Amino acid sequence: MKYYFLTLFPGLIHQYFGDSMMKRAVDSGVVDYTVIDIRDYSGNKHKKVDDYPYGGGAGMVMAAPPIAAALKSIEGWERYPVIHLSPGGRTFVQQDGEALSQAEGLIFICGHYEGIDERLIKAYVTDEYSIGDYVLTGGELPALTMADCIARHLPGFLGNNESLSEESFENGLLEYPQYTRPPVFEGREVPPVLLSGNHKAIADWRHEQAVEKTKARRPDLFEKWKRKQ
Amino acid sequence: MKYYFLTLFPGLIHQYFGDSMMKRAVDSGVVDYTVIDIRDYSGNKHKKVDDYPYGGGAGMVMAAPPIAAALKSIEGWERYPVIHLSPGGRTFVQQDGEALSQAEGLIFICGHYEGIDERLIKAYVTDEYSIGDYVLTGGELPALTMADCIARHLPGFLGNNESLSEESFENGLLEYPQYTRPPVFEGREVPPVLLSGNHKAIADWRHEQAVEKTKARRPDLFEKWKRKQ
Repeated sequence: MKYYFLTLFPGLIHQYFGDSMMKRAVDSGVVDYTVIDIRDYSGNKHKKVDDYPYGGGAGMVMAAPPIAAALKSIEGWERYPVIHLSPGGRTFVQQDGEALSQAEGLIFICGHYEGIDERLIKAYVTDEYSIGDYVLTGGELPALTMADCIARHLPGFLGNNESLSEESFENGLLEYPQYTRPPVFEGREVPPVLLSGNHKAIADWRHEQAVEKTKARRPDLFEKWKRKQ
Repeated sequence: MKYYFLTLFPGLIHQYFGDSMMKRAVDSGVVDYTVIDIRDYSGNKHKKVDDYPYGGGAGMVMAAPPIAAALKSIEGWERYPVIHLSPGGRTFVQQDGEALSQAEGLIFICGHYEGIDERLIKAYVTDEYSIGDYVLTGGELPALTMADCIARHLPGFLGNNESLSEESFENGLLEYPQYTRPPVFEGREVPPVLLSGNHKAIADWRHEQAVEKTKARRPDLFEKWKRKQ
């Protein structure tokens, strides 16, 4: 998977891919990433990439020409989905992460200020995504959030000992609670069934916990799950 | 606002607050942040903070004692909401960002691997939040996402020229499209009304665009908005 990030803040992207599981994925060749600083394509010596909105109003708008030039600096950009992160986009969910993991590469355009010129979106963007119903200062955190979720679906990203199958959303339920050593923490014991060695009883208990948790916290997911049983 | 982050990956948090609008907010005293490396509270020389899950299964679970010790290193931690980022938490939305901006401080616990020991959550966590219906490698991106949204509601965070009031979700609608110079981009013109100088016509057009966009993309938000009219 080749990720491309068009951004005004390259440092955050580099930091994310230089640390943690992402670094492991880059080192092992599962993920490849390129950061493109939109300012390098400003076309002026002040590296200015924004301007006042037509029609007035608060804030600044990112101009279309620098973003278009940055995009076209990617060899074969026409082959990849061009994703714009925006509160007005389609809400990104786990199933989108799985679907997008099939792409050969993905281009993320990270906006700032009051957004980017609509004509750039109309001309070049293939998919607009929102990671949730809230507004942020820029598209970098949403782009990294999508890239992270997508990467977890790539073969070789998770270790052998790990698995997507029991995670939240993968089977329509939230995940059951987890416990590890010590057996007693501040007077609180581990549920005895987990120490029983009875695999069937453990699996049943976990399933029951997942169902109860989903029912209590996310009645919307619970109803969907129930209809499928 | 004082933010505290309990994490295994301090670098990402430092990078985020050292750049962009967040740096400006830190420099001007609107936001203060502290990063606590959970490994420093492992209690063992190998800095090990995770262990196998009781009852078996894939992956590792973060142990409770190091997280509890890291939390208690914060002076007056009992006064602050203790937020755990988890796919099973309540879905974070813009209105939560506004509500949480009223707190004096916020503590974010960023989990990794297969999650953290449930007993730590039961004993110390006051709020569990999810930023969306997807699974990530860790809680850092969700914690930063929440911190960013919350910060935008703090007095002095946005510049004088900026405003929350016309943004997506603030009035129940998605934001209208934005345009800036040049007047023609790759043959595409700016909608003429925005160049008319007629403030009433511009406001009407923008409102209509916001309504149409919301109706087309987010019928759920549109229905809620319509009921309030």
